[in-house]
Amino acid sequence: MPLWQIYHPAGTFEDKTSKKAFAEDITKMYTTLGLPAFYVVVNFFKMDGGDIYVGGQTRTATDKPFVRVIVTHIAIHLPDDDSVYLCTTSRIDKIVKPHLLDKGYDFEYHVDETERRLWKINSLIPPRHKSAEERIWVDKNRAVPYDGAYPPAVAPQSSI
Amino acid sequence: MPLWQIYHPAGTFEDKTSKKAFAEDITKMYTTLGLPAFYVVVNFFKMDGGDIYVGGQTRTATDKPFVRVIVTHIAIHLPDDDSVYLCTTSRIDKIVKPHLLDKGYDFEYHVDETERRLWKINSLIPPRHKSAEERIWVDKNRAVPYDGAYPPAVAPQSSI
Amino acid sequence: MPLWQIYHPAGTFEDKTSKKAFAEDITKMYTTLGLPAFYVVVNFFKMDGGDIYVGGQTRTATDKPFVRVIVTHIAIHLPDDDSVYLCTTSRIDKIVKPHLLDKGYDFEYHVDETERRLWKINSLIPPRHKSAEERIWVDKNRAVPYDGAYPPAVAPQSSI
Repeated sequence: MPLWQIYHPAGTFEDKTSKKAFAEDITKMYTTLGLPAFYVVVNFFKMDGGDIYVGGQTRTATDKPFVRVIVTHIAIHLPDDDSVYLCTTSRIDKIVKPHLLDKGYDFEYHVDETERRLWKINSLIPPRHKSAEERIWVDKNRAVPYDGAYPPAVAPQSSI
Repeated sequence: MPLWQIYHPAGTFEDKTSKKAFAEDITKMYTTLGLPAFYVVVNFFKMDGGDIYVGGQTRTATDKPFVRVIVTHIAIHLPDDDSVYLCTTSRIDKIVKPHLLDKGYDFEYHVDETERRLWKINSLIPPRHKSAEERIWVDKNRAVPYDGAYPPAVAPQSSI
Repeated sequence: MPLWQIYHPAGTFEDKTSKKAFAEDITKMYTTLGLPAFYVVVNFFKMDGGDIYVGGQTRTATDKPFVRVIVTHIAIHLPDDDSVYLCTTSRIDKIVKPHLLDKGYDFEYHVDETERRLWKINSLIPPRHKSAEERIWVDKNRAVPYDGAYPPAVAPQSSI
């Protein structure tokens, strides 16, 4: 569910250790909230510095690296409330601190929220948050069929 | 319009045949609904397994490959109705079955819907769905100028 | 803030000159509106032609190249008004004209708008548009701490 796409220049996240540590911390942020670990997908995209422009400029090897992170939240949407949004970005800040901020990288992130009902894993509808079925997904750490995972689709008049 | 971004690990979709078959089935899903074939863009992104973390873990060559699909719908938005959403994901499930599920891949997809009025092809406004102009785009299978494709922009007070 | 992700086939944007010119024109579009230059991030993704399907087909070296652009707007959202949207796409058309249209490329772009309050740069909340603090960010062309950049997060009952 949470999908983290990390676009980083060559010279950053070159070794498995740094990627794994980051991905593990991201995962912890969501499992703490009760979500299954396997919901958390982190993709690293190593880019050539010449393909990254910030303010119309590329950076040299001696400049601070610039990392752009796109976070997509699907399973749980935030109520439209300043304090709730603030809490979310604070959580994210805590996660990215050792992996981006403390390393002296420049970075930017934004969170996009998309429709839960247009989301599936292995063609199963993920169970309701905090449901008994979700608990099983947490315990097994994989998508397990359950009653309600495959509701019959009734064709409405028009749709895409 | 529909943009399918398919992030797949090395070892999957390595040959043209498997990519073409998947892209063709995706395309059919939308042409069946009356949309021009060229609206359907499918991008394959082959990733190093070491750049994909699911639940904080990478997978080995003997694990199931994990494919993450992002679908963006722009041309037609869904009414906010459970049965309509269900119908859409059912269509998608049918498409991905032979290409992901039956191959034993783990996969996850979500659909994002974005604003139709912030979308252009070759700087033309795509014609209204089911209009005569759209019919021409279907027949010619490319973006063709028409009355209304280039409306004059009147600068509002402020915008981005 | 504005993030431009440009997915282009090999054979296009191969040299630094063409990428830089495009990124500079994109940047100008936003600095003209008073935003800091460094808000503008442009990422080029060179793709193998065999990984791009349009209407179920790949293109050959003699076909028109197809470039897909994803624009994400975060800092300023558009009022839901046809003329405002039209003005935005007209601005974009002006930018892409010399870099895509005049080169004879086929292209498609869409703009996605995401929540401003779920966006940070170097873990700072970007200052309000047209505020004195934003002015400083414009002048220094980097994220500078200011009062209000780190508001204390009060944990709400539940959030992600």
